[in-house]
Amino acid sequence: MINCPFCNPRVIEMQFIDNLYFYAIYNHSPILPGHSLIIPKNHVERFGDLQTELSSALFPFTQKVMSVLQQAFNVADFDLTIQDGAKAGQTIPHLHLHVIPRYINDLPNPGDWYPIFRKHENNELIDSFNRPKIPIEKLNEITSYLKETASIIFNSKQ
Amino acid sequence: MINCPFCNPRVIEMQFIDNLYFYAIYNHSPILPGHSLIIPKNHVERFGDLQTELSSALFPFTQKVMSVLQQAFNVADFDLTIQDGAKAGQTIPHLHLHVIPRYINDLPNPGDWYPIFRKHENNELIDSFNRPKIPIEKLNEITSYLKETASIIFNSKQ
Repeated sequence: MINCPFCNPRVIEMQFIDNLYFYAIYNHSPILPGHSLIIPKNHVERFGDLQTELSSALFPFTQKVMSVLQQAFNVADFDLTIQDGAKAGQTIPHLHLHVIPRYINDLPNPGDWYPIFRKHENNELIDSFNRPKIPIEKLNEITSYLKETASIIFNSKQ
Repeated sequence: MINCPFCNPRVIEMQFIDNLYFYAIYNHSPILPGHSLIIPKNHVERFGDLQTELSSALFPFTQKVMSVLQQAFNVADFDLTIQDGAKAGQTIPHLHLHVIPRYINDLPNPGDWYPIFRKHENNELIDSFNRPKIPIEKLNEITSYLKETASIIFNSKQ
C-alpha cells in the first residue's frame, strides 16, 4: 500500500525477526526501552480482516518476539496492546501490536505508560516515524543486537 | 486453582461463548459498555506459559468474541490489551485479555479509557469481582443476550 509506513520496504528491512506473515521492528520512538511493534507483512487494516491462518500465527510469533526482548533487555513483564479502529486510537491504518517491556519503577505508576503512549500518538510522534526519534545509528545498533539475540535463541540465520 | 476468581466455577458458568481452551465473560465492572474478558479455562498465569496450541487459538477466538460484541453492541472499534506480569499492571495472576469496545465520543479523549481502567484495577474494582459491580440481574441479562447473539451468529447451541 503506497504511503503506508508499515508497507515501506525501508521499514520492513529494519525487522529483527520475522516469519511468513509478520515482522517485528524496534519502535523508532519507544516509550520505554524495548518497545517494539509486530506488523503483518501484507497490508491488513483491521484485526477482523486477519484471516484465521494469520490470527493463529500472531500470538505464537508474539511469544518469540517477547523471548528476544526478555533476553536482550533482561525483562519479564510486558504490556501488549492493539488499537483496532480510529475510535480505539489507531492512527496508522495498518494493524500493529505493541509489545512494551515493563521494569520495576520504570514510571511513577505502572499505568503511566498509557498516557505517555497516547501523548505520542496524538502528536503523531510514534508509529508514524516522525520525530522525535532515536538517532538512526542507535536504532541500527539496537536492531543488530536484537537480530543477534534472536539468532542465538532460535539458532536461525536472522 | 483455589482462590483464583477465573478458576471459580460460578464465574466460568457466566461465559457467553467458549471453545476448548477459552471462555469469555462480560466484565462485572465494565469500564465501557461491552467490556469483556477472554480467559484460558486452565489456570495459566503468564502469556509465555501458554502452549502453542493455546496461543494459536487465542486470537481466532478473540475475533469470534468481537463478532458477538459488534453485533450485540453495534460497535466496530476495540482496544485489546493484556497486562502480562505485575510490573505491567496484572492484578489477577490468571492470564486474561481485555476486549473493550469503543464508541464515538464515549470519553472526552480516545485514550481516556486507560486511566479509568487503571483506577479500577488499582482499587481492585475490576476483574477481581469486588465492588462496584453492575447488579447481578443486569449481568445475567447481558450474558443471556450475548449468548443468544453468539448462537445466532455461529448457529451453535451456546
